[in-house]
Amino acid sequence: MFRILVLGSGAIAGLYAGKLVQAGCKVDFWVRKNSYELKRNGFQIESAPWGNFHYKVEKIFESIPKNLKEYDLILNCLKCLPDINLKKILGEKIPPNLPILLLQNGIGIEEPVSILYPENEILSGLAFVCANRLDAGKILHLDYGELTIGSWNRNPSFICDQLVNLFNSVGVPTQNTNTIRQARWKKLMWNAPFNPISVLCGGKNTLEILENPHSCKLVIEIMKEVQTLSKLDGAEVPSTQIDIFLQMTKTMKPYKTSMLLDFEAGRPMEIEAILGNTIRIAEKNNLEIPHIQTIYSLLNLYES
Amino acid sequence: MFRILVLGSGAIAGLYAGKLVQAGCKVDFWVRKNSYELKRNGFQIESAPWGNFHYKVEKIFESIPKNLKEYDLILNCLKCLPDINLKKILGEKIPPNLPILLLQNGIGIEEPVSILYPENEILSGLAFVCANRLDAGKILHLDYGELTIGSWNRNPSFICDQLVNLFNSVGVPTQNTNTIRQARWKKLMWNAPFNPISVLCGGKNTLEILENPHSCKLVIEIMKEVQTLSKLDGAEVPSTQIDIFLQMTKTMKPYKTSMLLDFEAGRPMEIEAILGNTIRIAEKNNLEIPHIQTIYSLLNLYES
Repeated sequence: MFRILVLGSGAIAGLYAGKLVQAGCKVDFWVRKNSYELKRNGFQIESAPWGNFHYKVEKIFESIPKNLKEYDLILNCLKCLPDINLKKILGEKIPPNLPILLLQNGIGIEEPVSILYPENEILSGLAFVCANRLDAGKILHLDYGELTIGSWNRNPSFICDQLVNLFNSVGVPTQNTNTIRQARWKKLMWNAPFNPISVLCGGKNTLEILENPHSCKLVIEIMKEVQTLSKLDGAEVPSTQIDIFLQMTKTMKPYKTSMLLDFEAGRPMEIEAILGNTIRIAEKNNLEIPHIQTIYSLLNLYES
Repeated sequence: MFRILVLGSGAIAGLYAGKLVQAGCKVDFWVRKNSYELKRNGFQIESAPWGNFHYKVEKIFESIPKNLKEYDLILNCLKCLPDINLKKILGEKIPPNLPILLLQNGIGIEEPVSILYPENEILSGLAFVCANRLDAGKILHLDYGELTIGSWNRNPSFICDQLVNLFNSVGVPTQNTNTIRQARWKKLMWNAPFNPISVLCGGKNTLEILENPHSCKLVIEIMKEVQTLSKLDGAEVPSTQIDIFLQMTKTMKPYKTSMLLDFEAGRPMEIEAILGNTIRIAEKNNLEIPHIQTIYSLLNLYES
């Protein structure tokens, strides 16, 4: 049996761990809070695309179990925030060959984990999903749900194939990719404009942002900066992707970005993972990205 | 006796018209609303630098008086907004040689008036003042108050000298300048960063903006763009002005910008006069100003 330790209990953790339970995996959780409620009540998933379901979990820890050798995978679904430190959570040493899947937002997030645990396989995952955590263990899955998973430092990757099969076996459309770095830049191309703009404009949804000609132009400028940077980073997202994203976003249900939901709930925003890391990569490559710089500065002040 | 028709009844109009009354001028008002209250109660000025005072006005119009020949000056203190149209207010024809002083914010605002009334002297004025309108006729003048006035299309200008003398005679430090275009760029160098940032960050004051290293950097980037543009426009503000403004803003009382006050009160913001015109001048000069472009786009969406 495939045994997984999930970090976090937000929308992504609750939803995808639940599907892995359906696929026959044994899933334990490490959470920062609410372990008692989660153990007692389990997770209640209200999913429009996949149907509602409920599952209970036997082991929910608030401190990392000593014997990590019991696990086949660590699934990291924590928010990517400066004060959430994997080294402090998992410790400096973990069993060699215990793979870690990062199902998180942002860019440049794999390298620090790979440096911290050089003997472990690091996998990188991208979820294209609209899902919110309503309360402890209560998750609302509104739309989409596709996963893209790739190994960051192994080729070929046995564990990656296995995960893709597990997810697909329970109806989560999941693809294995050899170009996860490019896939991450591609997701950033969408996140970098829509997430910050939605917050800085007092809470506009995706369609409102595109319907205003000025902010639509700004979206395109930011996407262009990400495109140029992806090329310099050796993982070019083709510039045709900009039009594809604009069309896709115009036709999909208007929705509030994850950063806007975080902001409205008074939670910290993933400013560094999405924008700060982008700026640092641009600096390494001597590229000016003034549009992203501007929204990064504004968000920093907004949150301060 | 010097006879003036003031347009508007906001903080600038009420304060400076009151000083002109003290200087012995006959002042009438054209206002969009509240003419009855203003006529009955007059203006009550609470001024920290100049002392409190009250004045009454005989003539307050809601439609422009037919005989504009009675006046020696039109003092335009209206907000610079797209839906406030001088042609509609004053009509297409006004007596030749009736000068108009624009005591308003923004850049590129004199030329349209000069084109509309080619036979009239257009004066341009800049107020460095912290003053708020609390209610109809009630104005709170917190700090500063200096004026800079220059003729836009006459050299030498008799009326400009006369105005400078009138203001100085009642303790309003006023200087006559032959380089009003440069003075306007200089004021824009301060307004272009602080006004929009204060709004986009959920209401920060000038000191909070400078104390955050990210937004302080953004202030400098925006000031640099204005500096470059002033040079291309033939009215260069020296780049040393950037440091002067930073030091000055750090040491002066922290305060909320006029754009933030407008935003908080639900009034339209002077986005076009301050940023839209700047972008249009940059486009004419083939200059990219991405930091200003970004905040302009965000403000547009914010207000939509």
